Parts: sequence; C-alpha cells; structure tokens
Amino acid sequence: MERIEKRRDGERGVDVGVVGATGAVGEVLIRLLLERGFPLRELRLLASERSVGRRMRVGDRELEVHRAEPDAFDGLDVVFFAATGGLSKELAPAVVRAGAVAIDKSSTFRMEPGVPLVVPEVNGQALREHDGIIACPNCTTIGLVMALAPLEAHARLERVVATTLQSVSGAGRPGLEELHRQLEDDAAPPGVFAAPIARNVVPLCDRAMPDGWSSEEHKLVDETRKILDRPDLALHATCLRVPVEVGHSASVIAESADAISPADARAVWSAFPGVEVVDDWNAGVFPTPRAVEGRDAVLVGRARSDAATGGLAFFEASDNLRKGAATNAIQIAETLIARG
Amino acid sequence: MERIEKRRDGERGVDVGVVGATGAVGEVLIRLLLERGFPLRELRLLASERSVGRRMRVGDRELEVHRAEPDAFDGLDVVFFAATGGLSKELAPAVVRAGAVAIDKSSTFRMEPGVPLVVPEVNGQALREHDGIIACPNCTTIGLVMALAPLEAHARLERVVATTLQSVSGAGRPGLEELHRQLEDDAAPPGVFAAPIARNVVPLCDRAMPDGWSSEEHKLVDETRKILDRPDLALHATCLRVPVEVGHSASVIAESADAISPADARAVWSAFPGVEVVDDWNAGVFPTPRAVEGRDAVLVGRARSDAATGGLAFFEASDNLRKGAATNAIQIAETLIARG
Repeated sequence: MERIEKRRDGERGVDVGVVGATGAVGEVLIRLLLERGFPLRELRLLASERSVGRRMRVGDRELEVHRAEPDAFDGLDVVFFAATGGLSKELAPAVVRAGAVAIDKSSTFRMEPGVPLVVPEVNGQALREHDGIIACPNCTTIGLVMALAPLEAHARLERVVATTLQSVSGAGRPGLEELHRQLEDDAAPPGVFAAPIARNVVPLCDRAMPDGWSSEEHKLVDETRKILDRPDLALHATCLRVPVEVGHSASVIAESADAISPADARAVWSAFPGVEVVDDWNAGVFPTPRAVEGRDAVLVGRARSDAATGGLAFFEASDNLRKGAATNAIQIAETLIARG
Repeated sequence: MERIEKRRDGERGVDVGVVGATGAVGEVLIRLLLERGFPLRELRLLASERSVGRRMRVGDRELEVHRAEPDAFDGLDVVFFAATGGLSKELAPAVVRAGAVAIDKSSTFRMEPGVPLVVPEVNGQALREHDGIIACPNCTTIGLVMALAPLEAHARLERVVATTLQSVSGAGRPGLEELHRQLEDDAAPPGVFAAPIARNVVPLCDRAMPDGWSSEEHKLVDETRKILDRPDLALHATCLRVPVEVGHSASVIAESADAISPADARAVWSAFPGVEVVDDWNAGVFPTPRAVEGRDAVLVGRARSDAATGGLAFFEASDNLRKGAATNAIQIAETLIARG
C-alpha cells in the first residue's frame, strides 16, 4: 500500500507479482494487465511447485515461473493471488510483511472483519481502510452484486432469489479439462465436479455442506450481504453447474417494498458503470454466457415484473474469468493507485 | 373411447396410430408401447409428407410410415400425436370423427375448456369426461407438477418460483441436431434456438411473447394451474435452454402458509407414485438430467428450507422424452383402458 501510494504519480510504475500465474484466471489476469495499460514495471510470475521453471510469453517477453514462497515477494508493490485458498492463506501474510498489498481471489479472507471485500463500482470506498489484504469476491457474487447494487440504491431490496448457472472455468483449468474430456469420451469419470458435467446440470458447486447448502451458495449469500452492507438481506441462492466453458449467468427475482418497474431497472442499470443493458426481448436480444465471454461488462436483460409478487425478474451474465475474477482484481489495484 | 371401453377386457387389443412416428418423441413412444406391454394390436405409423414411405423397425417387424391425413384413422382406437401443433389442430378432429381418442402432445388443445390436461398420477380423474381429445402437458410442466402435487396435497401452496433448465430434445430432433452441429463447429449458426446453444445458456425457450415472457413460461404457469386445479396459484417461471441432450430439470421454491419441512417433503414425495427421492446431499446424491435419462420417474432432491422465507427449496429432473412426453401419453391411454 505504502509503495503504491508513493508511485501514484506513475513515475516508475508498479512492481506486480501473480501467484497462480499458470492457472485459468492467472493467464487472463496477465493478459489484461497488458491490455488495460496497467502501469506495470516488474511482473513476477509465481506458482506452486509443479509449474516452477515453466516459461510464459507475456507481451513480447518470455518470463520464467518462480516458486510461490514466503520470500518471493521482496520489492513488489502488489501481489495478485489467483490460486488455491491454501496458497493465499500461507503466503498473503508474507506479502503484507514485505510491504506489498495482497489482492486475493480465493475465499480465504473474504468474510474476515477488517478485510475489504470489494467490487470497485459497488463499494470501492471500502478500500480506504485495510491491513494489506484485499479480498476479491467469488465470481458468481460479482455478477449478481453488480446487477443488484443499482437496484438496491434505487429501492431498498427486501428479498432476492437467485438461481445461478455456472461455467466449468469457475473451477479453473481442471474444470475446463474435465468438460472437454467428457465431451470426447462420455464415460470419462467426474473428478473436479460431483457428477458428469458434459450433457448435464449439476446442482452442486464447490462443496456440499452438512446444512444442505453448498459452500458456493453460502459464499453467494454471505458475500453479497457484506458487499451491499446489508447483513439482513433475505437472499436465497441455488448454484448449478452447467456445461458452459466461460460465463456465469443467473436468473434472479429482486423484491422491494416499492416495486421496481422494468423501465426503472433498465434506467438505473444503464447509469451504473460496468453494467450493460442487453434487453430487446422481441428482437431476441438478451444476455447469454457466450455473448459476455471476453468482455468486462456485466450484461443484464429479460427485465420483467414477477406477476406473482411484483418483484423484478431478470437474467444476468458475466465473464467469470474477467469481471468475475481478473478484471475485478485489477480494478481493485487501479483504484488503490488512483486513490493513493 | 367407445372402442377402448369395449376392449378393456383385453380380448383383442388396441389399434393404435402414432402421428409423428419418426420424431424424437414418436420414436420413444413406439419403443415404450412395446416395452410396457401395451395391449397393442395394430400399430399405424403416420407422419408428415417428408417421412412418408420410410420404414421403421418396431420390435421384430418393419413398418412403413404412412401419410398423416384426415382419412388415415379408420379402425383405430387411440391416436397419439407427437408432432407439430399444426398437425394436431388439423387432424385431431378427424380422429374424433373416426371414433378414436386423440392423445395430443402438442400445446394446441391444452388450455381449451372441456379438454382434460392430464398427468395420470396427479389428475387422472380428469379423464372421466372428455370429447375425444386428451391433452398431454408440456414436458417441463409434467416434471414440475409431479413434484408439486404431493406438496400441494400436504399443505396448500401459496407461491412457487421455478427456474427450469431445459434440454435441446425438448425441441425435438432438430434441437438435438443443432446442438451436435454446434459442438462440432462452433460457428454453426442457430436456427432452432434463439442463440447458439453449445457452450451456452439461452434464456428463451419456444417463442418470445410481447409481454416479456416466453410462450414456454406461459405454458408452464397456465398448465400447472389447470392440472393442480389452482387457477389462482402464484407461480413465477423462468425457462432456460441448456446444452443438455435429454432431461429437463428445475430449481424450485414452494411456499405455503404452513411451512413444509424437508423431511415432510421427502415423505410425501416417497409416497407419491412416479416420484423418486434422490437426496443424500452429504454423499453427493441429487437429481441430474443424466441420472434420469431413460427413466420414467421424476427425481426430486436437494430439499431444504429457504432461510429467507421458510419456503421449501428443491431440485427436480425428469426425462422429457419419457415422463415428459411418451410415457405420460401412454399412461393416459392405459388409464382410459383400465377405467373402461
């Protein structure tokens, strides 16, 4: 943080580390750092044991992957964690000790008091105070909360019901590989997912918890409440895995005391940075995972009133590797730099 | 009907016609007539122009496909319609004139007063009175209503929210072919579906209606209300198409004045014919489309209380070609025969 503050004038750029550089999110993150013109000086690629020594092309350079270990962070300003929660837990404190800021994509620190859990467009102000660790929400949470935040600002939400359709890349490269294997060989056994994912819908994302919910559903509820600062929000979530490579989507009903009309919803979404209204039903225009793949915007559409309750029903889609992960993490760093 | 009544003693069997014999549902229907030991005497295969003359293997016989036209029904007792609504509209009256019963899988007559819309386990009593045409519900409706009926009997439902995940075979053989084409060639354009379906979730099933809903969502709401005899039921539906070949599933919340506990739900489902509880969450046991493919039961699981409202949340899956179509149509005929 201190280092970032010193360099906000851009005099020399920012020294960045990426833990999990070879993973699905890590790869997108590195590409986006270049694409977005992030004021990058050093870029240090870090990963767990089995990727050490691998060389990756980054722009016109070729960089070697080093071991992610406690003394790997000297001289860095920002370290993105795009790996397993285990690595974050072990190494984020070392990043802080090295005087850098850890921006963590894992769930490890998200619900810790004092750790900001940030979607910059929604609660960027939460970055004002932190102790060196910033948490990036779950990929599913980011899409949902981007769609809900403008509605919440317009008319306080009373109840939200969300059914999510999550792509296999939400489980990283192993998830993508498992889908591809099963599309080639229908008998290929499940490993990453709890049931075959090719030609299927699997009503379990992440782990089954003893209370009948999945850890993914708990994350979606807990994180949405924290980001919107609505610890009391009544939110029901069902998280489903579908045979889609990239792009999470969700079918949502948002109820509020004063009903939100579809026209009002489109207006407040349109005015919100990072949200794009894709909603011309009669012309067959609506959000889909494929339409959002490779984009940073969260797409919202199919806005209509739930006749049963007057709630607002809609469908949203976001690229889980970009806004759901890499883009959001980079935006956090950019916000820190801009705020100084 | 009259003919069926005469033959309920099984003395000589039932003469059956199948309109749409070469389609995805027709083919399953013919196979199931044999598998279930339906008291079949004649089986007349009928189809539209382009399939006429084709020969199909039926058990150990090979039968020719004849043209579906008004004078094709002489001497038949039951005619199953598993083709387009256009053919049903044109030909079902001719079936009635020929003294046979038309069991129609299309949406043509479903909402007509006086036409029973039947899922035998749920409202078989509706078969007592009819004018020769019986409607078989939409494939998505059947799975939902099988899961809701035992809950409705246990505690009157006040509100239902359903998000359905529908397989491509719900759009027949052309839907299956479109998915296969796009899985082979990512650039193959959509035709049957409103957007590419491979690697995607498409929030439009059937047609977009000017009121912001799809015709599929209207069908699900209207038909569920008619079958459950609950014209006032508050029911919100979002119907999504997913890249699954066979098997429709749905994420559902059912609210009632007296909360239905997950244990009660499992008990009433278990006691209901045609419903199978597949619900051992901690062991990773839950319904999926692939688990129900080729089966007649509707699978229900993931029963849990929606913490926000006390409603019962669950997930159901059914084979849209079997219980969602062919099996249900045959069960209607079997019920007519048994009732005489």
